[in-house]
Amino acid sequence: MRALWLENNKISLRDLPQPRKPEEALIKTRKAGICSTDLELVKGYYPYTGVLGHEFVGEVISLTPSPSPQGRGEMVRVGDRVVGDINVVCNQCEQCLNGRPTHCENRTVLGIINRDGTFAEYTTLPLANLHRVPASVPDEMAVFTEPLAAALEIQEQINIKPNDRVLLIGAGRLGQLIAQTLALTGCDLRVVARHTRQQELLKARGIRIISEEEIKPWRWDIVVEATGSASGFSLARQAIRPRGALVLKSTYKGEMNVNFSSVVVDEVNIIGSRCGPFEPALRLMESNQVDPTVLIDAEFSLGDALKAFERAAEPGTLKVLVEP
Amino acid sequence: MRALWLENNKISLRDLPQPRKPEEALIKTRKAGICSTDLELVKGYYPYTGVLGHEFVGEVISLTPSPSPQGRGEMVRVGDRVVGDINVVCNQCEQCLNGRPTHCENRTVLGIINRDGTFAEYTTLPLANLHRVPASVPDEMAVFTEPLAAALEIQEQINIKPNDRVLLIGAGRLGQLIAQTLALTGCDLRVVARHTRQQELLKARGIRIISEEEIKPWRWDIVVEATGSASGFSLARQAIRPRGALVLKSTYKGEMNVNFSSVVVDEVNIIGSRCGPFEPALRLMESNQVDPTVLIDAEFSLGDALKAFERAAEPGTLKVLVEP
Repeated sequence: MRALWLENNKISLRDLPQPRKPEEALIKTRKAGICSTDLELVKGYYPYTGVLGHEFVGEVISLTPSPSPQGRGEMVRVGDRVVGDINVVCNQCEQCLNGRPTHCENRTVLGIINRDGTFAEYTTLPLANLHRVPASVPDEMAVFTEPLAAALEIQEQINIKPNDRVLLIGAGRLGQLIAQTLALTGCDLRVVARHTRQQELLKARGIRIISEEEIKPWRWDIVVEATGSASGFSLARQAIRPRGALVLKSTYKGEMNVNFSSVVVDEVNIIGSRCGPFEPALRLMESNQVDPTVLIDAEFSLGDALKAFERAAEPGTLKVLVEP
Repeated sequence: MRALWLENNKISLRDLPQPRKPEEALIKTRKAGICSTDLELVKGYYPYTGVLGHEFVGEVISLTPSPSPQGRGEMVRVGDRVVGDINVVCNQCEQCLNGRPTHCENRTVLGIINRDGTFAEYTTLPLANLHRVPASVPDEMAVFTEPLAAALEIQEQINIKPNDRVLLIGAGRLGQLIAQTLALTGCDLRVVARHTRQQELLKARGIRIISEEEIKPWRWDIVVEATGSASGFSLARQAIRPRGALVLKSTYKGEMNVNFSSVVVDEVNIIGSRCGPFEPALRLMESNQVDPTVLIDAEFSLGDALKAFERAAEPGTLKVLVEP
């Protein structure tokens, strides 16, 4: 089968054997999305060699009786359209046994850590990772389940009250989804969006944007930093009120210099946030309460995956999809 | 009156007029304690000019009818022994009006920000800041109310469950008090204590110590960092489990380099922690559930305050008291 292979900071198309893991379902990729993490992996921010890609919707080709427990969703059958949790876990380590499977100490992660990803004709995942996609959710929506789940992780971690003043810094691929999900809480949300198209997408949903100059320091109950840049972090730190929650929703290159004395004096709460729950993401798309499809900029065939990555890396590009 | 004055990184004894503020109570200092913050102020880590000192127990000499509301404690009268909240607040700013008076945007802070402190024969504070000391709590215990309240701020911020594994890094002036209050939760507490005397004080209360080498990484539900050093923070960061709470209980010199990507990947919660509630501190001392007096290393007269500061700055010294 064809697959997009990453090795030594270079991506290339390769012909690989169809994957086969006795304990896992075989899935035919229908669509896959390019995420900022994919671009960072190509830049070499994290070491990874293998097939790239972790955002996907696919069709179950074969199932083997799996000893691992099913996910919370409905029973998955051959022929079903599915999305999949990207962390494949051991169910035996301290993290798994204490209800933190996404932090499994022995995890592999689809297209990120020791597990071939979904920019390929086929991929495999354990049955327990799969979630059936409701019939009313089309492929181009379902392919956003993973990043939408990551956006929802914020609400898994902190209580966002309808009366909270919330500032979101960054309105890119993930930021747009966070904006849509935060807006559902009824909170007083403002979003810092750099590009005109980002701003227009937000305005179209009635989400208010704010310029950096308008941000009053020390006034925001919750600040979500989704730029992954030191300047974004610095802006977030200035904006947050004493005892406020500063949610870090992006990874950062290297180390950052932070004045922790001021974090102590202001009793700020800094919260790292990563993977989230798939079922709520599917429910919100099924009920049309979020619409990620507005983010789609372009779609390429797997044969044009290198072009797709070039396009995704252009500044201001939101979502680029790849179809095998 | 005599007072210990700080100016340009130098402390000296001065004769100052007795303080008089029409809206505040006049308090005769009975005992005052030297805190690490005092030593840092002398080193110039924060700019401050004025009378040093913020840990005290005193006697109310005169009260003026105060329009500001009383604290939660019993009514304070002339002749009462009192301790006092160090933040003098406006009751009008956004922080005050939202229940965060210790973060008042217009605050002065006793012996720290724009307000003469308690290494002096007399000091003044608004009636609302004062708390009556129960008769059974002697001066040498009551003088610890402020740092004990700061220790209790941790439990105001996070829920420490009896079954939690808690690591406390640092067993100095504040660390000892934190160890005593954390132990009251029944949690599985281990303390990193550098000096033999620190270790012995903990052992005497049945609190377990742990060496740095014994600390398993990624295993602690809650880590409290009370050293204020980059190495302490680094140890805390290694020890905390995914989604654990890392409480910063000391201020840090300058900036620190932190890998925030790992904070995001592990979804760590970093929480700055400062001033705490006085009434619970007084209750715990009244009921003998904590005993801060074991920390007292030496007591000096105000006339020997310079010697007292020298002694307090010696490595391993816990509490030095000053009596006017």
